Amino acid sequence: MKIDIITLFPTMFNGPLTESLLNKASKKKIITINLIDIRLFAKNNKVDDRPFGGGSGMVIKPEPLYDAIKSTGVIRKNIYYKNNYNKPYVIYMSPQGNVLNNQIICNLLKFKHLVIICGHYEGIDERILNYVDKEISIGDYVLTGGEIPAMVLIDSVVRMLPGVINPESVRNDSFYNKSLDFPHYTRPYMFKSHKVPKVLLSGNHKKIQQWRLNQAYIRTKKRRPDLLK
Amino acid sequence: MKIDIITLFPTMFNGPLTESLLNKASKKKIITINLIDIRLFAKNNKVDDRPFGGGSGMVIKPEPLYDAIKSTGVIRKNIYYKNNYNKPYVIYMSPQGNVLNNQIICNLLKFKHLVIICGHYEGIDERILNYVDKEISIGDYVLTGGEIPAMVLIDSVVRMLPGVINPESVRNDSFYNKSLDFPHYTRPYMFKSHKVPKVLLSGNHKKIQQWRLNQAYIRTKKRRPDLLK
Repeated sequence: MKIDIITLFPTMFNGPLTESLLNKASKKKIITINLIDIRLFAKNNKVDDRPFGGGSGMVIKPEPLYDAIKSTGVIRKNIYYKNNYNKPYVIYMSPQGNVLNNQIICNLLKFKHLVIICGHYEGIDERILNYVDKEISIGDYVLTGGEIPAMVLIDSVVRMLPGVINPESVRNDSFYNKSLDFPHYTRPYMFKSHKVPKVLLSGNHKKIQQWRLNQAYIRTKKRRPDLLK
Repeated sequence: MKIDIITLFPTMFNGPLTESLLNKASKKKIITINLIDIRLFAKNNKVDDRPFGGGSGMVIKPEPLYDAIKSTGVIRKNIYYKNNYNKPYVIYMSPQGNVLNNQIICNLLKFKHLVIICGHYEGIDERILNYVDKEISIGDYVLTGGEIPAMVLIDSVVRMLPGVINPESVRNDSFYNKSLDFPHYTRPYMFKSHKVPKVLLSGNHKKIQQWRLNQAYIRTKKRRPDLLK
């Protein structure tokens, strides 16, 4: 999968892209990530301007953003091509978007090329949305920019790509079966007077599996009954 | 505000902490962030182990995590102290937690010292939760570790601290008034045949304010009717 990230702050991605899973997936050539600096497409280095109609904050100008999207080979002049997984898919990280969930992640896995636009400040000029396929929000809260949300999106998608992590781990994920995960324990057996539940030491795999499913159910019912509906 | 981050991957935070808003807030001494490497508290460099009861993945051992929490001056032996904002507040980033929203963010703003634990792999030993005040999830999806979620949490909280961004920007945030944000436009007036809505050029501030409130309402009703309930 090819992932282009369009941003005003490419260096924010230094740590997250060079550690842990994303680094591993890059080295295995499962993903290729390109950072595209919006500033390179700005005339006189001017990437933002005051909003029409007044108000606080700055808005990212449409032209440098348009040219940055175009540089990925993707501008499509308002023609929405649904489900053509070979063409680049342009995403704008925004609190106004569809809230990220497993279904959206599984759909994104089908594309070969994602282009992710990170806003900053008050946001981007609304007219750029004519060139965006999907607005995605990571949750009902506001951050300074789209960079950290882009990291969230990339991590959630890349870990599901074949060859990145153990498929059994994915099947046990929270939300994969519309429930939360069960509790995990490791050595030592006794830690500060807290013991590991006995069933986990029984060696009875059927019983262990039943206990885990039950624990996941109890926890989901208590904490997130909305998931069970 | 003091923020301690307990993690196996401290270098993941390099970019996000040294750019944009978090860097600005650090330089202004509004926040102090410490990265605490769990590995420094591990015997024989062993931070994780296989789960009791079998299954895929590795679980972070309780002892090094306990010692890392203790190093922040905070272990409290199961005594929950609600609303004592002077004491450190221990958070575990986990898909099992309360889903982050504006209310949680506003509550966290009251604390002077946050300790944020990032899990990785299958998670942490369940018994550590005896020493955690709150589990927070950033949304209904799974990531490789708690590091990127910790960045989300920190960014969402720090931008609300006095002196970081313009308070007017916060008041116009999506979700601040239980609605999405209104659209933003900047120069040029005409971009690829798309014009800026005329009302924004009217100079009539009352009309502009009305139009923005109306746009925010229409957008929320269309995209997120759940927010209006």
